[in-house]
Amino acid sequence: MSILVVGSVALDSVQTPFGEVEDALGGAAVYFSAAASFYDRVNLVGVVGEDFPIHYLGFLQDRNVDLAGLQVLPGKTFRWKSRYDYNLNTRDTLDTQLNVFADFHPQIPEAFRDSTYVFLANIHPQLQLEVLQQMRAPRLTAMDTMNYWIESEREALTRVISAVDIIIINEEEARQLADTYNLVRAAGAILDLGPRAVVIKRGEYGATLFYRGDQPIDFFFAPAYPLEELKDPTGAGDTFAGGFMGYLAKEDDASAAALRRAMVHGSVLASHAVEDFSLGRLRDLTWEDIEARYQLFRRCTLF
Amino acid sequence: MSILVVGSVALDSVQTPFGEVEDALGGAAVYFSAAASFYDRVNLVGVVGEDFPIHYLGFLQDRNVDLAGLQVLPGKTFRWKSRYDYNLNTRDTLDTQLNVFADFHPQIPEAFRDSTYVFLANIHPQLQLEVLQQMRAPRLTAMDTMNYWIESEREALTRVISAVDIIIINEEEARQLADTYNLVRAAGAILDLGPRAVVIKRGEYGATLFYRGDQPIDFFFAPAYPLEELKDPTGAGDTFAGGFMGYLAKEDDASAAALRRAMVHGSVLASHAVEDFSLGRLRDLTWEDIEARYQLFRRCTLF
Repeated sequence: MSILVVGSVALDSVQTPFGEVEDALGGAAVYFSAAASFYDRVNLVGVVGEDFPIHYLGFLQDRNVDLAGLQVLPGKTFRWKSRYDYNLNTRDTLDTQLNVFADFHPQIPEAFRDSTYVFLANIHPQLQLEVLQQMRAPRLTAMDTMNYWIESEREALTRVISAVDIIIINEEEARQLADTYNLVRAAGAILDLGPRAVVIKRGEYGATLFYRGDQPIDFFFAPAYPLEELKDPTGAGDTFAGGFMGYLAKEDDASAAALRRAMVHGSVLASHAVEDFSLGRLRDLTWEDIEARYQLFRRCTLF
Repeated sequence: MSILVVGSVALDSVQTPFGEVEDALGGAAVYFSAAASFYDRVNLVGVVGEDFPIHYLGFLQDRNVDLAGLQVLPGKTFRWKSRYDYNLNTRDTLDTQLNVFADFHPQIPEAFRDSTYVFLANIHPQLQLEVLQQMRAPRLTAMDTMNYWIESEREALTRVISAVDIIIINEEEARQLADTYNLVRAAGAILDLGPRAVVIKRGEYGATLFYRGDQPIDFFFAPAYPLEELKDPTGAGDTFAGGFMGYLAKEDDASAAALRRAMVHGSVLASHAVEDFSLGRLRDLTWEDIEARYQLFRRCTLF
């Protein structure tokens, strides 16, 4: 199998109580690829400016990430600057410079159109739809989005949600999208739009999978692994999505049982990502690290 | 086995977006007893005023709760008035009238001093210590507390924590007590005070058990069951403690495996309690309801 991801490639400047980085590698497509590439081949579609240090992506190429879909355009790379509060749960975005990302129009290379697993990271829902239309016969499609599109592009967004198999969003986004605080009702309303599964990310509290199974609505809880050292939560959600989609692609299985194990793989990858700034930890991670933490997750949920 | 609980018996007036009640049955010892009595005999120690409608407790007596330790004093019963926000996570305490509870001095009846499992609900830590001193040979002791005592009675509180086997507190209280936001470190610091297990209640996100096991710090996650109908979270924490201690007493087992199952029993009982106001749901609950939801918890955590 192969996995297509379309999304941002960025240079992030991040401050947390535990340190800071400037113009470090970031972006949804990068975090996703770094995680998913442990499981299967990844085809990355994105855009950077001429200022982007392309060697930043060397470790991804070493791990079978195909960068043929990464456009390099005249101008500067998407930059994002953020500061996290002491609890790492609240952050202030200090600056966002879209630069070449403002005019991003994903072109899926011919060789990528047969990718079987597709992840649409958070971009304009209209562009997400265009990507889907370029794909030939994906077996499983998933998407992310953000509050901005929920507020400003609800119609296009609803069309994408109806078209994908799985939506992976934050708790607040789920509530906003469904206009209800109750998470079970929110998930039910989103499932009613078409997808067969909704994954709700809950930060330090883990993630919950909702799907239609034997019950009107079935669910599964993946905790977030409690870490003593947690340095930078940037990219945790996209890393989760990478581990989740990577596992499904590797197994080529999207049964309820596989979705549950994929939730744990997503959590395992995300729990590693936040242990260091930028892609620091995901760069050095090994398959043995992943398997060891997977067993820890099993251990701390068994009763 | 038998379980001793010492704590408040109250008349609660509660408003939530889903309705309201006035002078309804409440109090930590009552919620705890209603849950624990599904598992084993409960000995309740508390105080009410002469205005307390004693028939409110009839269903507890029917379930083998011994009220011999309930003092009826001249004056009025402890009253608490609260309003919950739309999300049921934030509440405003509108009024607290301690009344006879202000001078509560727990006297453990002779027949109660052999109780084998002891739960010290949230009262002045000095009183919690006095209760412990009156017990002959408890096999397992557990306690709750609140931010007020952490701030104003830290020394006495630390002595109680050092004396009990298990502490069951909220996430914010754990952080405040250990003076760190990081939950693993907070749990570690509290374990260093003496208890062999720390249960951290996380509201709609469930509860986490931390203990010293094969690892320097071992843990277990119990999710909160996601409900479509959630009317009133009052008493959820004490109900959790009741299910938790009730299960341990019934099995007379406090191994790590038993603690894990007890966490789920606590969550099962709490998930029922919040489905109605006051003791509405716990009054009508059956053992079959408990077993059925226990299986649902297993189902939504298995992978």
